[in-house]
Amino acid sequence: MPLDRLQHRMELRVRYSETDQLGTFYNSRALEWFECGRTEAMRALGLPYAEFEKRGAFLPLIEAHVHYRGRAKYDDLLIVDTRISVSGRASLRFDMVIVQASGAKVVDGHTVHAITDASGRPIRCPAWLTELLTENS
Amino acid sequence: MPLDRLQHRMELRVRYSETDQLGTFYNSRALEWFECGRTEAMRALGLPYAEFEKRGAFLPLIEAHVHYRGRAKYDDLLIVDTRISVSGRASLRFDMVIVQASGAKVVDGHTVHAITDASGRPIRCPAWLTELLTENS
Amino acid sequence: MPLDRLQHRMELRVRYSETDQLGTFYNSRALEWFECGRTEAMRALGLPYAEFEKRGAFLPLIEAHVHYRGRAKYDDLLIVDTRISVSGRASLRFDMVIVQASGAKVVDGHTVHAITDASGRPIRCPAWLTELLTENS
Amino acid sequence: MPLDRLQHRMELRVRYSETDQLGTFYNSRALEWFECGRTEAMRALGLPYAEFEKRGAFLPLIEAHVHYRGRAKYDDLLIVDTRISVSGRASLRFDMVIVQASGAKVVDGHTVHAITDASGRPIRCPAWLTELLTENS
Repeated sequence: MPLDRLQHRMELRVRYSETDQLGTFYNSRALEWFECGRTEAMRALGLPYAEFEKRGAFLPLIEAHVHYRGRAKYDDLLIVDTRISVSGRASLRFDMVIVQASGAKVVDGHTVHAITDASGRPIRCPAWLTELLTENS
Repeated sequence: MPLDRLQHRMELRVRYSETDQLGTFYNSRALEWFECGRTEAMRALGLPYAEFEKRGAFLPLIEAHVHYRGRAKYDDLLIVDTRISVSGRASLRFDMVIVQASGAKVVDGHTVHAITDASGRPIRCPAWLTELLTENS
Repeated sequence: MPLDRLQHRMELRVRYSETDQLGTFYNSRALEWFECGRTEAMRALGLPYAEFEKRGAFLPLIEAHVHYRGRAKYDDLLIVDTRISVSGRASLRFDMVIVQASGAKVVDGHTVHAITDASGRPIRCPAWLTELLTENS
Repeated sequence: MPLDRLQHRMELRVRYSETDQLGTFYNSRALEWFECGRTEAMRALGLPYAEFEKRGAFLPLIEAHVHYRGRAKYDDLLIVDTRISVSGRASLRFDMVIVQASGAKVVDGHTVHAITDASGRPIRCPAWLTELLTENS
């Protein structure tokens, strides 16, 4: 699969702290890995998310949808694919696929994020963010 | 809203460890609170979930859907409502609503769980679990 | 053991999210449980910690020491004992003991906290905090 | 500083999920980062820790000591130094130093680990582990 600018691939290893007594990762960790994917996808786009917040644009989650497809154990090396898209006038969507290095599915899903100021009030997508997300910029 | 046997209400306080730099709870904590709701709902039904696992029935998540409705800060007292239902022949569904003591919405959603053995292989819903979930038992 | 004003006892249950693949709690959870103990100990003293921060006094950890004494599994009911003491002119110490309901030891240790402003700069212990911690107040 | 075989250096970035409302990392995350350091240090030694557990040797924490030296914010790039040593006949010690890329101190400390079987019973240090930790092997 060719990766365009709005797609990003990274690797991460399952931490011992992320396992549970069933011997696989605890379910909420998927949302934390989704965050790792978003963070690295935005850095790769050219503007780290920490910089978003400095510029007054915050991306709190408004929805998360996760499908658990397979297990991942401590120290497994996972591949995290992130795809960013604009969803309406004031929200972003991140589509996520996490698989084992072998290709075995682990988890996929998507999150939808409002664009807000620091107090949580929705704002219009800032011009710099629209530009960042425009394919041919 | 009257609570029937398959509905359960509990309270929990937001821990400092559950906040993030935005000053509200970090998004993945919602799935951990959903788990607290499930645990207490099953204890109230008469069979703690730890007992499920001793009897060889595990309930790994196969889907989670979360809608973030409002903020919750450190030490806020939250009300967690859980509703259990059977979803198909071999899965359970938990519908969750979390609000502030004031009634302000915080998060809602649902999780779908397979019924499996310890190795993660799907099994039919055991008779004792069907009975537990049958309203007039 | 009689509990004086600066001692506090609470219960908590081990969450599934707090277990790891060894089947006991993951080690860092002890520090999160210590925080639960501090929070409830300060509420019992008469001033919730959230109020401390509103008044401009923060208590970041400067040291943590933890001894792991025994296992605790999912859903185990734990007893958390907290003892507050003043440690020098600008720090507080919390001595913690966590045991099973059976009395079996789980973890103990202590944390030392600076008294700082929101930016992390040490401040002198505010008069209201000194009063709060004075036995015969 | 030259790193010998029992010393290891890695980098990690502070996740958003690891921050708290004070804007720095939540204190328990230090123990999770220590675990990342141990995991990579043992992989670098030639035997991933997952392999230890497959061979029947577990390293549960028996003590953790942490000194918090400075802040680390979301997305800060941290350097994690780990030094392994044998501590008595049946325990290992990991000395940890975490600093910012700038060199500013963040956290340091050490953990002491028993060597046990899967049920938590202490065992003697296996010959393969002694060999692994012997400098001139």
